[in-house]
Amino acid sequence: MAQVFQVIGTRPIRHDGLDKVTGRAQYGADIQLSGMLHGRVLRSSHAHARIKSIDASAALKVPGVEAVATAADLPESGDRIAHLGEGAVNLRHLSSNCLARGKVHYKGQAVAALAATNPHIAEEALALIKVDYEPLPPVMDVREAMKDSAPKLHADVFTEEMGQLKKDKPSNVAKHFQFKLGDVHKGFAQAAVTVEREFHTATVHQGYIEPHNATAMFNPDGNVTIWCSTQGAFTVRAQVSELLQIPVSRIKVVPLEIGGGFGGKIRVYLEPVAAVLSKKTGKPVKILMDRAAVFEGTGPTPGSYIRVKLGADKTGKLVAGEAYLAYEAGAFPGSPIGPGAMCIFACYDIPNVLIDGFDVCVNKPATAAYRAPGATNAAFASETVVDEICRQLKIDPLEFRLKNGAKEGTRRADGPIYPRIGMIETVEAAKKHPHYVAPLAPGSSPFPRGRGVASGFWFNIGLKSSVTASVNNDGTVSLVEGSTDIGGTRVSVAMQLAEALGIRAEDVRPVVADTDSVGYTDVTGGSRVTYATGWAAYEAAQDIKWQMLEKAAQLWKTDLDNVVYDKGVIRAKDDPAKKITFKELAEKIQHKGGIVVGRATVDPPWPGGAFATHIVDVEVDPDTGKVSILRYTAVQDCGKAIHPSYVEGQIQGGAVQGIGWALNEEYAYNAKGEMTNASFLDYRMPTSLDLPMIDAVIVEVPDPKHPYGVRGVGEVPIVPPPAAIANAIYAAVGVRMNELPMSPGRVVKALAAKK
Amino acid sequence: MAQVFQVIGTRPIRHDGLDKVTGRAQYGADIQLSGMLHGRVLRSSHAHARIKSIDASAALKVPGVEAVATAADLPESGDRIAHLGEGAVNLRHLSSNCLARGKVHYKGQAVAALAATNPHIAEEALALIKVDYEPLPPVMDVREAMKDSAPKLHADVFTEEMGQLKKDKPSNVAKHFQFKLGDVHKGFAQAAVTVEREFHTATVHQGYIEPHNATAMFNPDGNVTIWCSTQGAFTVRAQVSELLQIPVSRIKVVPLEIGGGFGGKIRVYLEPVAAVLSKKTGKPVKILMDRAAVFEGTGPTPGSYIRVKLGADKTGKLVAGEAYLAYEAGAFPGSPIGPGAMCIFACYDIPNVLIDGFDVCVNKPATAAYRAPGATNAAFASETVVDEICRQLKIDPLEFRLKNGAKEGTRRADGPIYPRIGMIETVEAAKKHPHYVAPLAPGSSPFPRGRGVASGFWFNIGLKSSVTASVNNDGTVSLVEGSTDIGGTRVSVAMQLAEALGIRAEDVRPVVADTDSVGYTDVTGGSRVTYATGWAAYEAAQDIKWQMLEKAAQLWKTDLDNVVYDKGVIRAKDDPAKKITFKELAEKIQHKGGIVVGRATVDPPWPGGAFATHIVDVEVDPDTGKVSILRYTAVQDCGKAIHPSYVEGQIQGGAVQGIGWALNEEYAYNAKGEMTNASFLDYRMPTSLDLPMIDAVIVEVPDPKHPYGVRGVGEVPIVPPPAAIANAIYAAVGVRMNELPMSPGRVVKALAAKK
Repeated sequence: MAQVFQVIGTRPIRHDGLDKVTGRAQYGADIQLSGMLHGRVLRSSHAHARIKSIDASAALKVPGVEAVATAADLPESGDRIAHLGEGAVNLRHLSSNCLARGKVHYKGQAVAALAATNPHIAEEALALIKVDYEPLPPVMDVREAMKDSAPKLHADVFTEEMGQLKKDKPSNVAKHFQFKLGDVHKGFAQAAVTVEREFHTATVHQGYIEPHNATAMFNPDGNVTIWCSTQGAFTVRAQVSELLQIPVSRIKVVPLEIGGGFGGKIRVYLEPVAAVLSKKTGKPVKILMDRAAVFEGTGPTPGSYIRVKLGADKTGKLVAGEAYLAYEAGAFPGSPIGPGAMCIFACYDIPNVLIDGFDVCVNKPATAAYRAPGATNAAFASETVVDEICRQLKIDPLEFRLKNGAKEGTRRADGPIYPRIGMIETVEAAKKHPHYVAPLAPGSSPFPRGRGVASGFWFNIGLKSSVTASVNNDGTVSLVEGSTDIGGTRVSVAMQLAEALGIRAEDVRPVVADTDSVGYTDVTGGSRVTYATGWAAYEAAQDIKWQMLEKAAQLWKTDLDNVVYDKGVIRAKDDPAKKITFKELAEKIQHKGGIVVGRATVDPPWPGGAFATHIVDVEVDPDTGKVSILRYTAVQDCGKAIHPSYVEGQIQGGAVQGIGWALNEEYAYNAKGEMTNASFLDYRMPTSLDLPMIDAVIVEVPDPKHPYGVRGVGEVPIVPPPAAIANAIYAAVGVRMNELPMSPGRVVKALAAKK
Repeated sequence: MAQVFQVIGTRPIRHDGLDKVTGRAQYGADIQLSGMLHGRVLRSSHAHARIKSIDASAALKVPGVEAVATAADLPESGDRIAHLGEGAVNLRHLSSNCLARGKVHYKGQAVAALAATNPHIAEEALALIKVDYEPLPPVMDVREAMKDSAPKLHADVFTEEMGQLKKDKPSNVAKHFQFKLGDVHKGFAQAAVTVEREFHTATVHQGYIEPHNATAMFNPDGNVTIWCSTQGAFTVRAQVSELLQIPVSRIKVVPLEIGGGFGGKIRVYLEPVAAVLSKKTGKPVKILMDRAAVFEGTGPTPGSYIRVKLGADKTGKLVAGEAYLAYEAGAFPGSPIGPGAMCIFACYDIPNVLIDGFDVCVNKPATAAYRAPGATNAAFASETVVDEICRQLKIDPLEFRLKNGAKEGTRRADGPIYPRIGMIETVEAAKKHPHYVAPLAPGSSPFPRGRGVASGFWFNIGLKSSVTASVNNDGTVSLVEGSTDIGGTRVSVAMQLAEALGIRAEDVRPVVADTDSVGYTDVTGGSRVTYATGWAAYEAAQDIKWQMLEKAAQLWKTDLDNVVYDKGVIRAKDDPAKKITFKELAEKIQHKGGIVVGRATVDPPWPGGAFATHIVDVEVDPDTGKVSILRYTAVQDCGKAIHPSYVEGQIQGGAVQGIGWALNEEYAYNAKGEMTNASFLDYRMPTSLDLPMIDAVIVEVPDPKHPYGVRGVGEVPIVPPPAAIANAIYAAVGVRMNELPMSPGRVVKALAAKK
């Protein structure tokens, strides 16, 4: 019983489109305030060191330098865990990540900051801050860090072993947990085929085009305003509140346009530092990062070590799965090991599962969320093992997924039983897709070519959103929301309001408001905005609708239950002559007390989760090891595509990021733990010249809870690419790549090893 | 049965106070945008002339000049009357007042504008725009303009005579109307004493400290953003929409802080011009006025001619009143003659009344609202005639007012019957006040001294307001309102929300939002914000309260009707142990789906009106004619004083403006119709050195409709001063001043005439 839509599923121009293509949109770096100072951050030159002293006296003598800030200027945060943004945050760690207290745990960690009358003075003076370090040996690899003999990053981080804190000795392993389902021993005993493999993935960065920035103005009355580029203004507010011990109501965060985030712009870096410098100087302070600071000083996604063992019976039915995942948290505990472990087998119905997860500190930047955090690493491992099983059993890999794919009622290893989901539907769509039934795409040369497929899962989230919406007298509606628009959510939220009211998307005017001007709204992340903020817009439309009905009833001097709202037209039930459009009524009521404002707040149940199945054709240059993408098809269940163009854009963008992760991207470190490629010249992300058109195929299995069936779109498309490409490389040249990125050097090495 | 308040009546520091005293508040002139151009306006050098041609070619050749705008760039607006802001506006006139079309009707009228890369280039190039004028004789006085022989300003303005348009011949008299009550002939026949006098008042300006400004950014997609200093962002939106023929939803008006308005910042001047220049150049354009432009190019309050005749019987009971009021509209019809006529006898219960009102065009700037528009001129006339009657009958002027004062049930000449009002209570308070029973205040010299009293009325208005309010998890509330805060309304509105919720005023964080971010809200004017926006805040609090009750009921797993809200504490009726404060509940619910956002829109009935009675002691220097204010007491019924300090501030500010109007302020014109004192050096406003402390006495007769009894405060205190001072001058030196201002020259002349 599919809903019929007037607005949803169409492709109106996004409201912020022209501002963005003409350069008029205001980003954090565009902020200019009278008397504004420019801040810069001094970053650690060591991967691991004790800070013996910081001497800023020479810097403070430079004319134009007005203040220096160090950890001594931040309140001492205890080890309290606060739930800020997407997950739990240890405040002491968060504080030390903004300005290091006592020790530095990675090269690039913020150690001090200063504010000066112009950026050049700030940069020059920065070099005059003398930090006396006692260098310590760094540990840069997750498995090294897990050894008892490894240098310990923290004297006060202990292993939480299956929920119990082992306080006997400090450890780099912050956490070990298990997910269990059935009995894996019994399961593997039933297996006709068992494959077990080890995998390594490198640290990669989200690579958003806009560096971090923050401008703060601290008033003597204790109120502070912060302008920044963030995925969540309320999260910045909450974090700054905790770090500086200021009530949230004294902080106003103004979110400017954001030049990409992908999870990396949830945690604060510069905001509290700018606020402290502003408090010290009495002037507004603006701090910008350069690209090197972004790479070295903000959170990438973890490198990882993963072991996967899967068993299937002779019919091809999966009977058991075992996984061991160790994720690099970076400097402070908090890798996305949880989601990684939740996602690793989430595409399949496996009766017996055992998953071990480890969160491990290493001397790299504290990791942050990155598009389906943790899931891509995991899927690279599990989906290449699935491919091997299919090869061994000589089963078509999509047939295998149809046979084993998760569906409504399947229990996932971490507990939940799936509601209605679309895994099977994505596989069916992939199987029917012209790409899958066509011969391999032609290459540019006679190099070997191959096709691979892989699936992926991301659970998507709900969380809190608020909107208000005011009816204008020209029949348009101003919509106020608190969700940063990263990928077109102004329009996708506006369209849901428009659909509910029966008006055009263009007749909704969405604005993203500051934290003083809209109700609490969680971060733009977890693929939640179109789902949850869209839901709030739907509810606000209901609030508007009944008020408009009330106005119509007054106008016609009839009872409220005699008027009905139907696709933008209000009618009296008892008189066909009495009908009026939303726009007409909005115009009519303006001089008769007619202001209509709707509001809604939601904290909805989480959607059922998103599934994707990707198909890729590659060619491999056997001499250089270069892998080229010849054809790429990404099939994804998005529940309901509110604005198909932006859904396609999300799918394409996610796939491209996954391809970059698969083939080229990695943090290169030298022996001292220094990143050696902290620039876009050396950290190789794919460009449009490297890629074919990504064919985005939308499957729609509506989420039954959401009023319009939305599931969320943004994250799962990054999950399958590394595995799909690895499987395609195997198909082309017969080598199993078990390390990311599958860069030319590694491919050449693997080819040589095969020979 | 007086309400007991926790917040209302206290004096918290205003939320915007620190920003304003430290210079951090952002006013229109503070706006800086990348690539911004600077606009300047060329103003007419003639008081009355036909524009034969405008040649901007030389100006456009100046390097840095990017565009010129004239009336040719504005759509031709028909004679449509639009209800924008406080009253009806003829769009063709409004357009021509922004950029003159065909003719100029006053010196200083905007004729052309240009935008250049910096203000200096703009000013230089402006002088190169050649306007070829055909000068016409100006008419500068209302009675001259009413003559058949007078030069006519408009070929298409005809007299609306008692509601009928007399289309036979053009006239400077745009309107003549009458208010009638009883039978004046019969009334005057009963009079024992009849006094009839003529009065003249000069054109005066509001004299706000901040000149007009506007910055506009016109996007190629047809959306325009305007930053300005205005009393009503939605009114600017509506006016620009009409003048440029753009839907309101394509216009976003961002109201910045306002450095005074007093009615003069409701009509647009620069906003559409900046928008047109921005559209032509593709860049943001900012235009500022200088002080001369403010005096010559924006709306002062009208000069007027008034004749008043009052009759009382021998007991001192008023039996009849007649008034003839002719107000200078300035260049275009639209003086506040209506309110003037409504207010002239509004303080009294007079059974027989006839009032004639005339709206008359003269070659002065188009008049605008100014604090109780029209009422001060009228009260100067009626309240000095009342004083003469009291003298003749030898009745104490306050006793006379007690006897004749309007009260609940009194019918005003324009129709309405008063609900509960506070005229009598202000007179009683004045009579009991130490000032009234004390001897005359000591002067600085042996000059003659005297005491005068006068009363005043302003009806105050209601109109539309919207607010939204979000509960923060620290128990504070963010309040979004659309009312420009001129005199402390952020706090007076916040206090009403706080009172309703039982929280502290400091725990409400009010913001004045742009037109995209809050529901429709009418102008800050008519003394309506604390009344109507405060009422909206009260209603939003009710919306929040029931949601909080719902959350508490969920928390306690009880029924909604088992929980009650009492002064910031929620309790379960059936269990004394179950109680929780608003703040505690806000904190508690944050992780349990607990977002609470309230909203309200109101269009309330108008309040009953505001009355004031002032007492003044003066001394008069018989040689120079200088009048000094020795002591001043202003008694006013404000219904309920939400924040007494700002009520007192409004009363003091209004009284001071009235004193300036009484003694010094006037537009001085030469024979060519050129203003000769367009600067603060030559246009003499009183400073703190000229005045004693104004003793503001608050009387509280709650308005029975308003939830907290508010009536509105800002306007009526300007009404009594000229009459009170004129009466005091008579008491001192025995001359009746019948012309404003009662400047030294006029006083000397009157004294000479007496001799």
